[in-house]
Amino acid sequence: MMEEEEPRGGVTEEETPPREVNSNCNHTDDDVTSCPAEAPGLPATSQKPGPVVVQGNTQNPASEKLKRVCKWSITTYKCTRQALSEKLGRGSRTVDLDLERRLELLKDDRQRYDSVTKLAKTLANQLAQFSVTQKTLGDTFAELSLKTPTLHVEFGVNADTQRFLSKSSDTLTASVNAFTSDMNTLVNKTMEDTMISAKQYEAARIEYDAYRVDLEELNLGPRDAVTLPKLELAQRDFQSQRDRYQRIREDLSVKVKLLEDNKVKVLHKHLWLLHSAVAAHGLSCHSFLQQNVRRAAEHQDSPGVDAPSWLEES
Amino acid sequence: MMEEEEPRGGVTEEETPPREVNSNCNHTDDDVTSCPAEAPGLPATSQKPGPVVVQGNTQNPASEKLKRVCKWSITTYKCTRQALSEKLGRGSRTVDLDLERRLELLKDDRQRYDSVTKLAKTLANQLAQFSVTQKTLGDTFAELSLKTPTLHVEFGVNADTQRFLSKSSDTLTASVNAFTSDMNTLVNKTMEDTMISAKQYEAARIEYDAYRVDLEELNLGPRDAVTLPKLELAQRDFQSQRDRYQRIREDLSVKVKLLEDNKVKVLHKHLWLLHSAVAAHGLSCHSFLQQNVRRAAEHQDSPGVDAPSWLEES
Repeated sequence: MMEEEEPRGGVTEEETPPREVNSNCNHTDDDVTSCPAEAPGLPATSQKPGPVVVQGNTQNPASEKLKRVCKWSITTYKCTRQALSEKLGRGSRTVDLDLERRLELLKDDRQRYDSVTKLAKTLANQLAQFSVTQKTLGDTFAELSLKTPTLHVEFGVNADTQRFLSKSSDTLTASVNAFTSDMNTLVNKTMEDTMISAKQYEAARIEYDAYRVDLEELNLGPRDAVTLPKLELAQRDFQSQRDRYQRIREDLSVKVKLLEDNKVKVLHKHLWLLHSAVAAHGLSCHSFLQQNVRRAAEHQDSPGVDAPSWLEES
Repeated sequence: MMEEEEPRGGVTEEETPPREVNSNCNHTDDDVTSCPAEAPGLPATSQKPGPVVVQGNTQNPASEKLKRVCKWSITTYKCTRQALSEKLGRGSRTVDLDLERRLELLKDDRQRYDSVTKLAKTLANQLAQFSVTQKTLGDTFAELSLKTPTLHVEFGVNADTQRFLSKSSDTLTASVNAFTSDMNTLVNKTMEDTMISAKQYEAARIEYDAYRVDLEELNLGPRDAVTLPKLELAQRDFQSQRDRYQRIREDLSVKVKLLEDNKVKVLHKHLWLLHSAVAAHGLSCHSFLQQNVRRAAEHQDSPGVDAPSWLEES
């Protein structure tokens, strides 16, 4: 894991902390993101087997490692200070109003969709239990229909109804479960993916702001032979951080727009599917019941119920 | 409670044990009914306030009491012996095949109706919970419909559907609860009443059989000056027990026939009511859903879903 990483493009090596240290703080707090995120442009250190090109390296590996840890510590310190001063309401922060509004909306939507998913899950479970009871009741009615000639039709009609409703409930349960599963994918995969990107964006934003504030502070101070090189270095750091921040912001912005689009299409489809399933359940139950009532009315002329009472007979 | 009871009609005093002792064994076992039941023809001892006619009584109350306890003990002994010998498969028993078959059928029906009642109760409870979830889901959809202009129609249609279904489920729950309540009355009041009469009939039958077996045994023995009075007494006892048994059997037979009649009428009514409630639920849901789909289709021309994607636009 300690192989050399070649600085590439406008990304200076300073912003990439030693990997083994960075990997320890991947799960940062949502608000105070003091740990700089991994630069997305950099490839992971190659671990492929086979021939490895060993770079010429004139520097002492130990001192190089020390240098990197040192730089990572400085970056972490800067980011923590920036995050804290933002939390305390001091210091300035870069804000992309449009993007942040969209992210807020997405977060809110995600919560609502999550509660819809949970409710649909509960509905499906309750419906499944309901269906079992309907089935048992239908079977009991069917037995009674066989056992009671005088109430054969009445028990039979109810038996058929409950058994049919049970089957139809099962179909509806499957549809609601499909809806739940699709909503789950939307909420916990598609939207979650964008939320993770949003966290990475926030980390990059804090890191950029930390270097920006640094540069601004140096610009306010005197310019002499001692501060000038520092200023130049800060300027260079600032520039590379800004490029990185803007690239990540652009990526996230595209992702959010794609999600907004995708979300509407996915929900449009699944909400209609859900409604269609409910409507189909309603239609099938209604048709069956109508038919059942008609069939029962035909049998209604059969003896038993309309026969005179034993008291009337005697 | 120790007042005199006047013997009336063909019912001799012997068969009426002292009341305070008899009341201790009212809840007898279903199979071995060794304790003679109270003769139904006898009125309860009058406890009305106001002037009481005190009967002329030349006998010593204490010795009278002793005599009654003694007679009751003999009856109890006879009945226990009869019940035991029946249980052990010895001895004869009077059987009314038709009445016993009817009682068996009623017992079986009662068990089945009881399980129908319990299932219907479960169904109503599950439906009530289901309705609550539907309502909550409907409300969540309604909020999302307001919040999401691009999916206003889709969320709205589902919100209306779930809210309507919830209301309709409530109506159905009420109907199922009414069915449960009526079934409960049939099973635990009407049928239970006949079951209690059947137990009283069984007790009277055992008592009658006990005196019948006694008489038969005496008839088999020699006839002399000692046994002849005993035989006469046994003959008298047997006659009065037979009258009582036949009266109780007749009462029960009428009761069972009335119940059979009543049961069919009651069940006929409630089974149709239940089916109608389910059918009405099916019809109302179907009508609403059809109308809802039509209304939604009209709104379908609205922008949002069919608008080109952001990617297609740019």
